[in-house]
Amino acid sequence: MDVTENPVNFSEFLQQDLADVQVRFGKEVASDLGCVNELTQYVERYRGKMLRPMLVLISAMASGGLCGKSDQLLEAHRIVATVVEMVHMATLVHDDILDEADSRRQGKTINCLKGNEAAVMLGDYLISHAYHLCASVGDQKVSQAIAGITNTVCEGELLQLHHRDQLDIDLETYYEILRRKTGALTGICTQMGAQLHGLNPQIVQKMYHIGQELGVAFQIIDDLLDLAGDEAVVGKTLGVDLRKGKLTLPMIYLLSILDPAPRQEMQAMIRQVEDGNQALVSVLMEHLLEKNCIAYAQQLASDRVNAVIQDIKALLPDNRGRQMLLQVAQAVIARQS
Amino acid sequence: MDVTENPVNFSEFLQQDLADVQVRFGKEVASDLGCVNELTQYVERYRGKMLRPMLVLISAMASGGLCGKSDQLLEAHRIVATVVEMVHMATLVHDDILDEADSRRQGKTINCLKGNEAAVMLGDYLISHAYHLCASVGDQKVSQAIAGITNTVCEGELLQLHHRDQLDIDLETYYEILRRKTGALTGICTQMGAQLHGLNPQIVQKMYHIGQELGVAFQIIDDLLDLAGDEAVVGKTLGVDLRKGKLTLPMIYLLSILDPAPRQEMQAMIRQVEDGNQALVSVLMEHLLEKNCIAYAQQLASDRVNAVIQDIKALLPDNRGRQMLLQVAQAVIARQS
Repeated sequence: MDVTENPVNFSEFLQQDLADVQVRFGKEVASDLGCVNELTQYVERYRGKMLRPMLVLISAMASGGLCGKSDQLLEAHRIVATVVEMVHMATLVHDDILDEADSRRQGKTINCLKGNEAAVMLGDYLISHAYHLCASVGDQKVSQAIAGITNTVCEGELLQLHHRDQLDIDLETYYEILRRKTGALTGICTQMGAQLHGLNPQIVQKMYHIGQELGVAFQIIDDLLDLAGDEAVVGKTLGVDLRKGKLTLPMIYLLSILDPAPRQEMQAMIRQVEDGNQALVSVLMEHLLEKNCIAYAQQLASDRVNAVIQDIKALLPDNRGRQMLLQVAQAVIARQS
Repeated sequence: MDVTENPVNFSEFLQQDLADVQVRFGKEVASDLGCVNELTQYVERYRGKMLRPMLVLISAMASGGLCGKSDQLLEAHRIVATVVEMVHMATLVHDDILDEADSRRQGKTINCLKGNEAAVMLGDYLISHAYHLCASVGDQKVSQAIAGITNTVCEGELLQLHHRDQLDIDLETYYEILRRKTGALTGICTQMGAQLHGLNPQIVQKMYHIGQELGVAFQIIDDLLDLAGDEAVVGKTLGVDLRKGKLTLPMIYLLSILDPAPRQEMQAMIRQVEDGNQALVSVLMEHLLEKNCIAYAQQLASDRVNAVIQDIKALLPDNRGRQMLLQVAQAVIARQS
């Protein structure tokens, strides 16, 4: 791919801006209560690739090229980058309660360490601070857009819960869940990059679509890693989805191509995994590999990302921001953790 | 008390305005997903006295008298009244997870009916919509103030969790928890009544103090009812606090007046209640009654409310809003449920 021929050195170029996001994050969540600071400091360990703030920053740099502000960042971009990271952290903390997960990023989860109650409240605390910080942008439309997106993220999570244990869920429902629970937040990241530059609504909407599609592809791969990843590399408990009755792309696809009899057999096995029969996970994996379901899911994620890459090239002028956006798009499907 | 001599008929005077809050609430949380609407409709059953929206509305009417708008409500007051009700509902949903409570307002809790996961996400959904609706006021300062308050509410909950199982917690820490987890939200209610009329910061701050103190008194009584209420009247599981290692005013007071030996005996009994020995609850109650600890707590709540009543009379001109505010203050200590 031509986009990697002259890769921008990310860590160097964005390092300072991402460090700035971390400083703003720390300042916003600091409390006069030691017991609160202890929890928020612990949650810093959850910090990963900082995909969402990165998307805000590089989308800002990229779309700035459409209004004579190529590779430029405004104060509002930096605030919103911190806000989306805070929202994301909150969803991780609450997700771990939903998933009853014990570990994340090589460490114990808050719910495992301090109990579900502390995890519920810590997530609420982070969400609350995200909106508090967001209000400092000084533009009510931004607060409204971010809150509108978190409405959608919650809907996605509730839709997923509603379909839990439904072993006949179809791909369209799966994508709808992904668009809401993951795509909405990544969509607002790329959207805000452009919107805060004052670009026109048509461009802003296209930028949302780019982020949304990247988010959906990211989640497809995330779900794949839960099934077929390496626990040591991924750094969190794997196989959680199957045990919690959450079917993801490879399994939904497998069930859709099987004849009724083997399909029912497969569904019976999934129910046994839910009931705690861990040994059957590897049997299910063999079936998924035999029918190329893992490769199929990988391909669908690739197709989405390639379409996004075309959209980016069609919409945005070539600059460092665009280069990085293209690299992030490719990294979404290449990742192992 | 003279304030009840000519009581305003609340239900008649505020009925339409509170019904309007309910309509706005329903519109805001409506989703295109049936599974989401099912949950939010269920949560309507949690609706109680609507204390918080009522505080916004009557504080607006009362403080309007200071700027020639006696008993007047602005559109922003109606929005904020709906926002605080939504925040309160979210905290109820999340509190029930923290308390592992099975029933509320004579019905099953969401966590009991649909699981902790749905309760976590439904609470998040309500919080998110609260901020979304709040952004429609069109004044970033209002969004910032409300989010600042929810920061404080979460701190209060986390502080309470931190002190759980600490059987030597002192009264000052107990009040600090109450000021944050309950007083902050009722404080912003009375504050916003005045602030949205554009009244000066000094008045706005005094109005916050009035609401905060009412909230603390309300919570003291709420905690009392958990200990000494009638389950059929209160409508939710009682004795939860003791079982969860949460000491409240009567017990903190009792422990503070006992000599070391009986104090340790009492603490040992509390630990046994935490471990599931329900029979000991009535023994503890006998000790609380014998030492007049229930009456003592009731008296402290009364003292607070009486001080608030003086503050209200000193600050606000006599109008229907003030009459209602004084009635609400008295109702806080008179309530049985």
